[in-house]
Amino acid sequence: MNIKITGTGSYIPHNIEKNEDFLNHKFLNRDGSTINAPTEVIVKKFKAITGIEERRYAKNDLNTSDLAFFAAKKAIENAKINREDIDYIIVAHNYGDLKDGNRQSDTVPSIASRVKHLLKIKNPKCVGYDILFGCPGWIEGIIQANAFIKAGIAKKCLIIGAETLSRIIDRHDRDSMIYSDGAGATILEATDDEGGIITHETATFTLDEAHFIYFGESNNQDIDEDRRYIKMHGRKIYEFALTNVPLAMKSCLDNSGVSIHDIKKILIHQANEKMDEAIVKRFYQLYNMEMPKGIMPMTIGELGNSSVATVPTLYDRILKDKLQNQEINKGDIIIFASVGAGMNINAIVYKH
Amino acid sequence: MNIKITGTGSYIPHNIEKNEDFLNHKFLNRDGSTINAPTEVIVKKFKAITGIEERRYAKNDLNTSDLAFFAAKKAIENAKINREDIDYIIVAHNYGDLKDGNRQSDTVPSIASRVKHLLKIKNPKCVGYDILFGCPGWIEGIIQANAFIKAGIAKKCLIIGAETLSRIIDRHDRDSMIYSDGAGATILEATDDEGGIITHETATFTLDEAHFIYFGESNNQDIDEDRRYIKMHGRKIYEFALTNVPLAMKSCLDNSGVSIHDIKKILIHQANEKMDEAIVKRFYQLYNMEMPKGIMPMTIGELGNSSVATVPTLYDRILKDKLQNQEINKGDIIIFASVGAGMNINAIVYKH
Repeated sequence: MNIKITGTGSYIPHNIEKNEDFLNHKFLNRDGSTINAPTEVIVKKFKAITGIEERRYAKNDLNTSDLAFFAAKKAIENAKINREDIDYIIVAHNYGDLKDGNRQSDTVPSIASRVKHLLKIKNPKCVGYDILFGCPGWIEGIIQANAFIKAGIAKKCLIIGAETLSRIIDRHDRDSMIYSDGAGATILEATDDEGGIITHETATFTLDEAHFIYFGESNNQDIDEDRRYIKMHGRKIYEFALTNVPLAMKSCLDNSGVSIHDIKKILIHQANEKMDEAIVKRFYQLYNMEMPKGIMPMTIGELGNSSVATVPTLYDRILKDKLQNQEINKGDIIIFASVGAGMNINAIVYKH
Repeated sequence: MNIKITGTGSYIPHNIEKNEDFLNHKFLNRDGSTINAPTEVIVKKFKAITGIEERRYAKNDLNTSDLAFFAAKKAIENAKINREDIDYIIVAHNYGDLKDGNRQSDTVPSIASRVKHLLKIKNPKCVGYDILFGCPGWIEGIIQANAFIKAGIAKKCLIIGAETLSRIIDRHDRDSMIYSDGAGATILEATDDEGGIITHETATFTLDEAHFIYFGESNNQDIDEDRRYIKMHGRKIYEFALTNVPLAMKSCLDNSGVSIHDIKKILIHQANEKMDEAIVKRFYQLYNMEMPKGIMPMTIGELGNSSVATVPTLYDRILKDKLQNQEINKGDIIIFASVGAGMNINAIVYKH
């Protein structure tokens, strides 16, 4: 028995927020002090580092659970399965449903229950739960579903990553330009078909790293001091990721028995273009190799960082021929990898 | 190989909130109208239905993750394991860290990451994640850990249920008297010892039931209309639970091959005394039996409904001889069962 992804779907919100749309924002340092540069320069520098030119925001009347539902519907259709045969619905997110204009996360019932409700699935044996695991949540959901299938308690699982980060950002923080909304979904199944998950690896670093990504106050100290936003220590995360993600990927690859030369694509969490490139370059350095051209498909330029949604969305878009000069063919070996709040890191070596 | 709980711990917050403490609350109907009864009568009726006389609230400076940490520490000590050997930390909760006086749920990083940080565990291979699954979250965490052990990706898991519902209640809603704070934790291990998890069962009902427990406005319509609280359709939940929980328990027991006569205790989520009694009575009716005396130990009278924390706390207190006339001995077969937001139901037949 192999365990494979048999269907994918994604939902890209319609509202495009361009870098120019931030030109009227008043960015401040964390301590509230003025940044010694005009906003235009800040935005330009941001683009140079992150590669992000625009990002997508969900329409006001849509929530994380709606985005998750849209992506899930496509993945189910794509897998050509009966939705009543799904054993698990696993939704990775970070903040629940964040209704536009309301600062409170709505996490009860779970997003998985909401998705199941929207999908009108009747079968009570289809178990829905949410996982909070930072940006690597979708990959971790795949790893959990893989374990459920191996343990004999599931055959078909729907794993979704969905997020509306646009509703939890501090508009006075430069980092607010990174975040985006979106959803990606996949069906993971036990199958006799060749390929599937070969090895996986997960690590949680908390001794010094637990609060690298956190819930913090606005950089604008005139704003309601009780209000919290997604915040990060960018420099620390960069150094942490650069050290630990390549090692986790290497450990996963070495355990798989697959040669580095046989890796066709690396689908890494779209956090920041320069950081992602540095990670993958260092990964190849561990094998005394140069990073092959085109090995790391990117969508961050147009889609930004939608947390849990970036990897499944990227995978779906490649398979649906939405990325120029990028393809994944039957038998290709790829690596999924992610890093994010927790701090969590994971990787999967996978044969398509 | 068997999979057994080898250590338990719980944390009971110090602040006691008695029913009398609600006498100055102005309870209203959902539509904001006045309830045609003096508060004294409302509170008395509440006690008669739910069995709750008092409940525990966490101190202002403690959060869900602190409660989880306190319970986890005790469970690790009780299991006599090295904390660096833990493969998974699974935390079930519903609202993240709800800082006293702040309405925003803090869910990034995950509560599991915070607990791991507080436990000062260094091993990055110890993976921490949170599960959102309503009140049955702790039992579901046990079921997931069981699958990870069976799938060969874990040997020792720490599963915690922790909640501070006192911070998300509407003081104008009678149901606010139900909720409580607390944490329970357990270590689940692969072992050669006899017993452990025999069978388990989970169901998620969402077609009509998804929003039986929800995030809603205050009954007092003069209050900030953006603010949301934990809310429930009590009558619908009662009927749903009475129909479906006994059937899930029966299915789980029948699959185990264990005779109903061999069940020594039923540890059911402490939601509401009358409802719990009706569920267990109906469960025995399915076997044409009367409910045996003392089969269902209760802590709800003194501890209220602390959601995910009730079952592990109850189990811990029985094992530590904190409940009069209640004991669980080696070889005893017990049933864990729960029902809550989702709507989710689960059960485990377990040999102590």
